[in-house]
Amino acid sequence: MPVTFRDIEDAAARLEGITNRTPIHTSRTLDLAWGATVFVKCECFQRAGAFKFRGAYNALSRLTPEQRSHGVLTFSSGNHAQALALAGRLLGVEVTIVMPRDAPFVKRLATESYGGQIVLYDRDETSREALGKSLAEEKGLTIVPPYDHPDIVAGQGTVVRELIQEVGPLDLLFVPCGGGGLLSGSALAADHLSPDCRVVGCEPAAADDAARSFETRTLQRIENPETIADGARTPSLGDLTFQIVMEHVDAFERVTDEELLSATRFFWERMKLLVEPTGALGLAGAKNHGSFQGKRIGVVVSGGNCDVAELGPLLKKSARFV
Amino acid sequence: MPVTFRDIEDAAARLEGITNRTPIHTSRTLDLAWGATVFVKCECFQRAGAFKFRGAYNALSRLTPEQRSHGVLTFSSGNHAQALALAGRLLGVEVTIVMPRDAPFVKRLATESYGGQIVLYDRDETSREALGKSLAEEKGLTIVPPYDHPDIVAGQGTVVRELIQEVGPLDLLFVPCGGGGLLSGSALAADHLSPDCRVVGCEPAAADDAARSFETRTLQRIENPETIADGARTPSLGDLTFQIVMEHVDAFERVTDEELLSATRFFWERMKLLVEPTGALGLAGAKNHGSFQGKRIGVVVSGGNCDVAELGPLLKKSARFV
Repeated sequence: MPVTFRDIEDAAARLEGITNRTPIHTSRTLDLAWGATVFVKCECFQRAGAFKFRGAYNALSRLTPEQRSHGVLTFSSGNHAQALALAGRLLGVEVTIVMPRDAPFVKRLATESYGGQIVLYDRDETSREALGKSLAEEKGLTIVPPYDHPDIVAGQGTVVRELIQEVGPLDLLFVPCGGGGLLSGSALAADHLSPDCRVVGCEPAAADDAARSFETRTLQRIENPETIADGARTPSLGDLTFQIVMEHVDAFERVTDEELLSATRFFWERMKLLVEPTGALGLAGAKNHGSFQGKRIGVVVSGGNCDVAELGPLLKKSARFV
Repeated sequence: MPVTFRDIEDAAARLEGITNRTPIHTSRTLDLAWGATVFVKCECFQRAGAFKFRGAYNALSRLTPEQRSHGVLTFSSGNHAQALALAGRLLGVEVTIVMPRDAPFVKRLATESYGGQIVLYDRDETSREALGKSLAEEKGLTIVPPYDHPDIVAGQGTVVRELIQEVGPLDLLFVPCGGGGLLSGSALAADHLSPDCRVVGCEPAAADDAARSFETRTLQRIENPETIADGARTPSLGDLTFQIVMEHVDAFERVTDEELLSATRFFWERMKLLVEPTGALGLAGAKNHGSFQGKRIGVVVSGGNCDVAELGPLLKKSARFV
């Protein structure tokens, strides 16, 4: 077993006093509409605005002194980049980030403000993995991938560990899925702390590579999918996250962009939580899943980094959520 | 003394289990930039999206059975309306609301969704007080004013009571000021729980009637001021809130709309809190006040009800806050 609950516990000990123990919010409106009790774990309030800081800090903490002194490199659509840049600053490790040219400007800005060195590439022309690897070899940098690594998965697992430790066992847990780091860690934590909990990965319908992989039991790829959920545009699960997903996840839900915007609007307007569309995958997936009457439901909000000018008017056009 | 700390304590007992004990957020970025420790009391997470629910519920709880059976009426730019409608629904009291025709649509919608009966009027043609009084007489309704009432002030005082009870004494406290209900309650609570705390009312520069009243020691009015802070467009303090402000508030800060948008943007983008511009008066006022080096600072966020489509693009144009 490449990652165990013990690894999540170890990660939690490393993150103690460094990461925010993010709050869990509830909504009377939602509970009433669904006849359920919904616990929203708010990683939008995590440092650097997303859960990614947990895995990034855990991974950097595990490097050898020599690796630290050479620095690290990663490729990311944004939140992992910011997280790693911040973790690097805190631990004195130089961080280089390979980022698509069309990543939200606010994410680039934040990454730079945390001291990260950015290398831009064109999504349609270059593979970020290939570019990353050649840069890393050239400068002796250690690659810290955004999700497909045991230390990343273990770090992300601390989100749901905190959630269940605080609110108790759950019947259902809905988790956003891009590359599967958060979903893998969440499923491992839930399996250990709330064994009867059904864990559901939530993906954009246009980027449903993980759902397809799960259903066909074969790793599927979707290159450059078109979705508002920019954090879930990853082409596929990784080898490690695919394996954990197959063993510990119970189901997937697909969410259209319209459904995602509707859930995002609910977070903004009713719960006053500045959630990015990718971060609302769990709530939108829960709605599509249904059968939550009388259930205790966990929803992971993955982050809150987004362009508010672009998103505000889009949300206004979206349908009422409940 | 028309309102005392004892009244705030009594209100807190009535609100126990009904209002949300709203969370207090902090920002490493802000603390680092200011060299201070800033505690943000998040009334955007209060029921109905603003602190107003505290005073409204407290006031309705204090009505006689006969008054309750006849119903109540109020005039409000929005948040008090929603709060009273919700309190009325919970306590079985019919609520009529006189609201300006140009109030944000999202506020009208929310008020109606809580079961409030809305009567619209034109801000430029009619005095809301006059219209309210004639409607109340006609139907035997009790008027529950938005701020100038001891039960409202006592209810709003529970915000800062919670804040100081949780984080301990403060050096400075910044509170949004419209009609002065929140500011009065906050100042009374701070005076009792943290006597050395300097209490600063924060107003839009274009609607600085309270600051002028404070400086001239004479109640000043500004009719229909132009400001993005729609919750602070009230023409003046009330008789009661003016008196409490004169006795318990230490200073005022004026905030331009541009400064307000900059502070609002900081809440959205950096703290992931969906704060309405009026709600950001405290943070913007704190910045203008300065001299916070090494200080323990309380900032009250009054609410989060706003039109995200309108505001998103406006925020994007505003200046960096720290």
